[in-house]
Amino acid sequence: MKKLKSHKSFKGHTEFWSHESSVTKTEMKFSTFIPEGDVEGCIIWLSGLTCTEENFISKAGAQKALGKKNLMVICPDTSPRGLNLPGENDSYDFGTGASFYVNATVAPYADNYKMYDYIANELYDLIVNEFKVKNISIMGHSMGGHGALVIGLRNPEKFKSISAFSPIVNPTVSPWGNKAFTGYLGADKNTWSAYDATELLKTGKKHPASILIHQGTGDEFLARELLTNNLVETADSVKQECVVNYAEGFDHSYYFIATFIKEHIKHHAGYLT
Amino acid sequence: MKKLKSHKSFKGHTEFWSHESSVTKTEMKFSTFIPEGDVEGCIIWLSGLTCTEENFISKAGAQKALGKKNLMVICPDTSPRGLNLPGENDSYDFGTGASFYVNATVAPYADNYKMYDYIANELYDLIVNEFKVKNISIMGHSMGGHGALVIGLRNPEKFKSISAFSPIVNPTVSPWGNKAFTGYLGADKNTWSAYDATELLKTGKKHPASILIHQGTGDEFLARELLTNNLVETADSVKQECVVNYAEGFDHSYYFIATFIKEHIKHHAGYLT
Repeated sequence: MKKLKSHKSFKGHTEFWSHESSVTKTEMKFSTFIPEGDVEGCIIWLSGLTCTEENFISKAGAQKALGKKNLMVICPDTSPRGLNLPGENDSYDFGTGASFYVNATVAPYADNYKMYDYIANELYDLIVNEFKVKNISIMGHSMGGHGALVIGLRNPEKFKSISAFSPIVNPTVSPWGNKAFTGYLGADKNTWSAYDATELLKTGKKHPASILIHQGTGDEFLARELLTNNLVETADSVKQECVVNYAEGFDHSYYFIATFIKEHIKHHAGYLT
Repeated sequence: MKKLKSHKSFKGHTEFWSHESSVTKTEMKFSTFIPEGDVEGCIIWLSGLTCTEENFISKAGAQKALGKKNLMVICPDTSPRGLNLPGENDSYDFGTGASFYVNATVAPYADNYKMYDYIANELYDLIVNEFKVKNISIMGHSMGGHGALVIGLRNPEKFKSISAFSPIVNPTVSPWGNKAFTGYLGADKNTWSAYDATELLKTGKKHPASILIHQGTGDEFLARELLTNNLVETADSVKQECVVNYAEGFDHSYYFIATFIKEHIKHHAGYLT
């Protein structure tokens, strides 16, 4: 694990790191904010399409609230990079910057695009062993909101709480999800439901903590890609506690995330500290 | 004036604009945050080398504090763009993204690089006439801190207050300043002092409000380029009120600015509202 940059930031440090991942077999980067003093818990942030380890940590304005709650955040990159696989760099919504946090099973992605394992296991263990933090939660935005819901619902014993901004809640029936899952998992749709939060709830996966979601009503992707209400209805029918806040007029951007990030940090602090 | 993008953001809107500047004879872009309700004043933010109209508004986390004080902010781009003048795009510290907020007097820059006039007059008048805000202050970072100090000290009747993060306070004796002033103003150093905050104080320019400065002690540019103490000593000798906060361990980045921006907004609010 190499520290690439460190910036003093509110009452702590914003830092950038790289390490050799045994899961993706590439160098992976991530950013952190670590408050001074005792760290009581860590939230993993998963970013959306086209993002890197830098977007959240530079734009969301989370450091002050994290410091007040004695929480660190860790923000991994959104995919392996630099492999130059066929098709990897042809579009913004597949390949580089667009892993969808699945374990790919079809060539040429199956060897490296194991982002589900990378987040749920390798990065998780790195937080525990290298940063010495045991209480861990997960949140994310858009494709990363999908990742947080899926990884959290499938590992309720590892992640204390889940939250999401503008998540893709039902990717098996959205255009982005269909494209990604076809490319990473193949045409057999039976394999897709393990990476669909709404389908996971239908098949019995639940999380003991309440799930917090913020969704802008002015989000251009809401009706076609995010499909928030599919999760709301399913959560209701299976008795998964889930609070969805529709924020009037807000869009899909980091200006929206910055407005409500404090509420998400407070939510996780309730389970982590 | 064209509105390019609008994002709901805390209790207001973050927006991106363009207009045809009669001063630079180019299209110029700027960003704004405008709180809902009555706007009591406006702060102009001038960014540093390589920045655009986007850096501050996306990274500084200023929107919440601005909203609470009923203040707007306007963040212009750091130079004209797209002219393709000889030498304009050869280095990060001269030409595009590096205007130093002077009125260039030598070819080929004299026709368009009139950023002093653009900020002090054209953008100022646009705030008054288009946004209908009369009380205006100015702040900035690094090269933009230099710009804020120079424009504010030379126009104390127009700008209610001045503040800066990591400003270049004495550019006539710094390498960045020497390079820029030689290129924009020519070799005659007598013409340079009108764009040097420390020299302006020495020659009698003063501002009735206290000037607020934050400077990180871990800033890699402090000793060679910023020379903060030259301003501190001169301000002391000419009785210009000036509060300089040396922030232990902080660097030159937006992580530093984000940490202290609330104090600057509060400072300006004291003069604007």
